Formats: sequence, C-alpha cells, structure tokens
Amino acid sequence: MSPELPVPETGVLAVASHVVSGHVGNKIAVFVLQSMGCDVSALNTVQFSNHTGYRQFKGMRVSAQEITDLWEGLKQSHLDNFDLMLSGYVPGAAAVEAVGRIAKELKADAATRPGSFFWVLDPVMGDNGKIYVAEDVVPAYQDLIHHADLILPNQFEAELLSGVKITDSATLERAIEVLHEKYNLPHIVITSVSFPLSASQAPSLAGSRAHSPAPAAPGSPQQSRAPQTRTMSVVGSTRTSDRRPRLFKIHFPVFDCYFSGTGDMFAALMVVRMREAVCNNGGGPEGGVLNTESWLSPDGVDALDLPLAHAAEKVLASMHEVLARTCEAMPKEMEAAVARLRRKGGVGQNGAQQEGKNGEELDEKTLHLLRSRAAELNLSRNLACLRDPTVAYRAEKM
Amino acid sequence: MSPELPVPETGVLAVASHVVSGHVGNKIAVFVLQSMGCDVSALNTVQFSNHTGYRQFKGMRVSAQEITDLWEGLKQSHLDNFDLMLSGYVPGAAAVEAVGRIAKELKADAATRPGSFFWVLDPVMGDNGKIYVAEDVVPAYQDLIHHADLILPNQFEAELLSGVKITDSATLERAIEVLHEKYNLPHIVITSVSFPLSASQAPSLAGSRAHSPAPAAPGSPQQSRAPQTRTMSVVGSTRTSDRRPRLFKIHFPVFDCYFSGTGDMFAALMVVRMREAVCNNGGGPEGGVLNTESWLSPDGVDALDLPLAHAAEKVLASMHEVLARTCEAMPKEMEAAVARLRRKGGVGQNGAQQEGKNGEELDEKTLHLLRSRAAELNLSRNLACLRDPTVAYRAEKM
Repeated sequence: MSPELPVPETGVLAVASHVVSGHVGNKIAVFVLQSMGCDVSALNTVQFSNHTGYRQFKGMRVSAQEITDLWEGLKQSHLDNFDLMLSGYVPGAAAVEAVGRIAKELKADAATRPGSFFWVLDPVMGDNGKIYVAEDVVPAYQDLIHHADLILPNQFEAELLSGVKITDSATLERAIEVLHEKYNLPHIVITSVSFPLSASQAPSLAGSRAHSPAPAAPGSPQQSRAPQTRTMSVVGSTRTSDRRPRLFKIHFPVFDCYFSGTGDMFAALMVVRMREAVCNNGGGPEGGVLNTESWLSPDGVDALDLPLAHAAEKVLASMHEVLARTCEAMPKEMEAAVARLRRKGGVGQNGAQQEGKNGEELDEKTLHLLRSRAAELNLSRNLACLRDPTVAYRAEKM
Repeated sequence: MSPELPVPETGVLAVASHVVSGHVGNKIAVFVLQSMGCDVSALNTVQFSNHTGYRQFKGMRVSAQEITDLWEGLKQSHLDNFDLMLSGYVPGAAAVEAVGRIAKELKADAATRPGSFFWVLDPVMGDNGKIYVAEDVVPAYQDLIHHADLILPNQFEAELLSGVKITDSATLERAIEVLHEKYNLPHIVITSVSFPLSASQAPSLAGSRAHSPAPAAPGSPQQSRAPQTRTMSVVGSTRTSDRRPRLFKIHFPVFDCYFSGTGDMFAALMVVRMREAVCNNGGGPEGGVLNTESWLSPDGVDALDLPLAHAAEKVLASMHEVLARTCEAMPKEMEAAVARLRRKGGVGQNGAQQEGKNGEELDEKTLHLLRSRAAELNLSRNLACLRDPTVAYRAEKM
C-alpha cells in the first residue's frame, strides 16, 4: 500500500447524482473515494447541469430500468465485485428499489464471507422538516434500510425512518434505538443534530443536502468570515448483539454559510475511514471485525472505541478543513464572478446597477446564483484536507 | 498555489464518455484533471456500464439535444466560464456539432481576451485503419477542427482529417502541414506514430482508443511482462505565423498489452501540462504566450523549446509510469478475478474446466473480459505518477 493511502485496494460502487458543474453527489463522492485510493465504479442516477440549490437546472434522470440495465451490464462482464457500496440520491421510488436490488444481490453474494461487503446508505429524502423527493420514496427506503450496514440520515431523515420526532437527547436516543431494533441496523450516524436549536435555524456543516430545492438562507462571502459561534453534532451508534445502541456524539462548529454536497462528501469519507478503522485495528480494542458480518464490534467495545467513532472523527476533521478553505476563498470567488458578469454585460440587467465589487446591487436571483457557485466545495486544490486532516473534534459519550 | 499543483486555478469543461466501471473517457480524464488541481465541469456524452473494448456493454447515449440542454443549463446559471475545454468521444455527428457549438461560443466569448480560452480536441473516430463511429462523424470533425487550438488525433485520425495516407516521415510531415495550412490549426500532436511498422501491428501506449469495438490482440498478463522492445512516437507541431510546422517527435517504448483509455489520459494530461508550460515559461525562451491567441509561440522559438514539446514530454513520462504499474499489477488482478469467478461457480461454464490460477482453460470470451478488466488503467493508487513523473523520453527534432 502506498504510505499515504488510508485503505488497501478497495472496490466501491457509488450510486448517486452527477452534475456537470459543481461538487455534489457522485461528482464529489467519486473524487473523494478515488483520491483516497479506491477503485470506484460510478453509477450516475441523474445528469444535471448543476445542483438544485441554484433553484434552476437542466438535465435528465436515469430511469429505474436504466439503472438495472447498467447493473446487468456490469454483471455480464464480471465487473460486479465490490468491497463497499455507497448509495446517495436516487430519483423516485422505483429507482430506489432498483438500487436496493443491486445492494441485496451484493449482500447475498457475500453471505458466505462475512464482512466482505458493506453497504453505506445515505437515505436522501429531505432536510429541515421538508421532504424534497416523491412521497413514495419514504416507504421505499423504509423497506430497504434493514439491508444496509450503515445509514447516514440527517436529523429529519432519521425522524422519517424511525417515526420518532427528535427534539432533545431523549428522543434522539429513542430514534436510534428504534432504528437498531426495528431495522436491525448495525451502524447509524445522524449527520446533523441541532437541538436545542430548532432544525430550521441551522444550515449545517455535515447535513445540508445537495438536493434541497431552496435553501432558506444562502450564505454570502461576508457571512462566511463571521466567527463560528454555533455548534452542531454528529451522533453515531453501533449496535450490540442484542440491538442496543452504543452512542457517541461529536460537536463541531458550524460555518454560517449554506453549502451543498457536504452530505455526499461526508458519506464518501465515511466509506474510506470506516474501512480504514476496521482494517487498521484488527488487533486493537475494537477486536478484529473485518471478517465479521457488518463489521460489528464485540459487545465489550465501548462507544468511543468503535471504528465508527474513530471514522467519524477523521471525517469531520476533513470536512471542517475543506469548508474552512471554501469559505476563505468565497470573497475572491464572488468578486471574480461579478467581474465576469460585468464583462459579459450581465450586470445591471433587470434594472439593477452594479456598484460594488461584490455585486451588492445585483438582482437577488443573480446574487443567489453567484453565491451558490462560490459556495461549491473547493476540493481539487485542497487534497491534503482529505488525506491528512488534523482531528480537532473528538467523540464523546452521550 | 499549493506547491505540488502544476497549474494555477483552472476551470476545464470536459466533454466525453462516462463508464460506470473502469477508466476511459471522462471517467479517467476528470480524475486526472481534478488530481492536478483543476476545477472540472464534466459533461458526459454517454453512460455505459464499461468501455466497448470488452465487446459487450449496456447503457445509454446522451442526445445532441440533451448536450445542448446541459450547456444551456450552465449558461443560465453563469456556470459557463472556462479556461480550457477538452472534448473526447461524442456519439454521432449531431452530438459532435452540438459540442462544436459549445466550443465556438466559448471561443467567441474569449475573442477580446486572447489566450483566455483554449480548446483541446481529441477527434475520436477510429484507430488502426478502422472507423468506429458513424460515417458522418468524419465530415462533422472536418468542419469543426479549425476552431480547435490543439488536436490529438492518432495516426489514422490524422489521415482522415488531412486526407494524407501516412506511411513514412515525409507523408507524416505532409499531413501535419495540411492540418496547419488547411485548418489553420495552432497545435497538433499525433499520439501514435508507428511506422516503419504498419499501423495495424501496434497496440500503442498513447494511441489505443477506449471505443475500439474489438481490439485485435488483447494483452495477457504474461505478455505484459515481456521486455519492451518496440517503440512508437508521438509527433507534435506548433505552427509559425505563416502556418509552417515546427516538428518534434518523442520515441517511447510500447508495452505489449492492449490498454483502453490511454488516449483519454493523454489528452487530460496534455491539458494540464500545456497550461503549466505556458504559465511557467512566461519569461522563458518560449516568450510569454499566455495572453497570445492559441498560445502560439513566436516564430523564433525552436521546436524543442515549444510549450507543446515540454508538455508532451511530461505527459509521456506519466503515461509510462502508470502503464508500467498497471502491467505490473495485472497478473495479480487476473489471479484474483479467476478466483472470484471460481467462487461464484462461473468457471467451467461452456464446458471449459478451470485448472491454473490464471484461468488458462477459461473460454475465450470470459478470458477476454477478465483481461480487459485487468488492463484498466490503475490510477487512483498511483497518483505520484501523475503529479511528479520522471521525464525519461525527450523531444527530438524530426
């Protein structure tokens, strides 16, 4: 293994959206996974010009039948061998079911080799109290998630899946209990827990969704430099043999800016770091779980010693560094975008006149578009943040 | 700029094919570009399960209208700002024309800022004497290429575009003269010149095509370890102000193995290294051409001092290292693939019995599939080959 690569050779099937411009869905997940040394098969569920947070886009969805065809194409050429699968945004219930069939086939194939296949499912359905997929996607995921090894819902999605409204620590714990008990889920990470703040107040580091149709408060470059005063939490758990939670939380500061693609980046990093934790700690306190079904640690392993907790710490460290650098670059990005628009004669349209270099007098729609572009995660020039982050936020007991 | 990144912030529009599994087209070009620090917008012209060299695949093409729609989507959200465009495989003449319209718009937008936009066109049409696109794609490219800044045909494609049959140095030079004169092309690199060998004998390092429907001689792991006895050449030229060629050639050893995606990797690396050469040598012997239309060096610059020649040297160095490592890993890859197939009960089908670990007794079709998989470029674990290759093959005068 190359010294800087965190995982041994790892084949990942990544199923998510593709955008031509910007960094959400597979567009960011594939790059993260490849940069960390994984061999990635990327099945794109849509091809859009840009993410939906811009509030306008063009492009096409891939149908359930086409997803199935691509999978059949892989199988007929013996290209269906994967150590992990990561599934993200899938358009519509039929397509979710098609993706679920792929995962189930891979699970079945691995049945005689425990731990040889691991499904990380990001059940993309909504955020901040709003569902932004078709209604029938929710039951489609409810039917599927008991096949997953690790799910990565945000707070709202955890509510949809568990049926528990999360308002405080007790209801949060109850929701995770339900997910372990009812669906027998091995690992759960809730990527954005914001109480005692209400969910709607908090654009999050790790939980904002690429497919949110209309972020309530798109950040401005100015906002991005404001001190990071609010915190949020990631809350995770690996179940015991009798389906009880082993809970940990990690607090992290929130940037006052609306990012898209953070959930997808979080998920891709979790794939790598979870495998890393399981591979590297075969003899450690976690016990050797690489050849254990769903990489479930023995009951004696404490929450803070879970591979899941170690993985989440590293993931958040990378996330924080990438977001910090993205924020840092935003004013310059905005300035360049406004200058380009001025050159093209696009500034001043709709009666607004351009005065300042940050386009203060642009119409609101144009400003939103430019800000959305400036908030795209800045990854390709910040690879060190992925590979070698400094862990600053540690897992704590709940 | 991060010390290890070769180029300043660079926006690239990459238009090519996408495969779920494997490494051709945009699947490899986007990763190469991102790994070198570019911000890549990736417009995928197809989504196939795998490249066509496997001789079977499933998936869908993106229509000319859909390509245009995606472009309109970018424009309406001010996401149409690029320093370079790289276009590769495009399915059908109408789609080639749609991609050409995008390039022409970007050229027109840059008209008042010379050197601010550069189009690298890989005119994917065929290889080794065979056209593997629709017949009307050839005139579609002939109509388009005078808008390109750099074209990267293989020997056969250079013949199709120039109308000159290339059999020796004289006809090669004549073909390049025609391309400079007739199409006013600034820069040309012919990626696989194999005379005095006939073209059909030589699976090449840099010229094999992802979309070749049936490679004549798929390599085996054993072959890949054979001594590299044959050589091929890359031949390049940047025209003078009166459209005369400045020719250079670079010899390199050929691996005795059929790779796919090498042309796409070559093209993506050329994008980066050409920009690097032009950015870094503003005051050097090439003169400062970053703000010159098509990055054309002054007439006094010698062929061996061209940014194009320096770029090609570095590109071939990276290619050679990646291919060497891919070859090195192939026997292990084959062994693992045969073992997987045996486990799944797929070995021995069609009456053949598995005996050796390399699947010597598998049926020919299965062997071809496994070998194609084993020959997929191994990039994600060999990033150092991209970033920091050792230049071993130098440009020489023709």
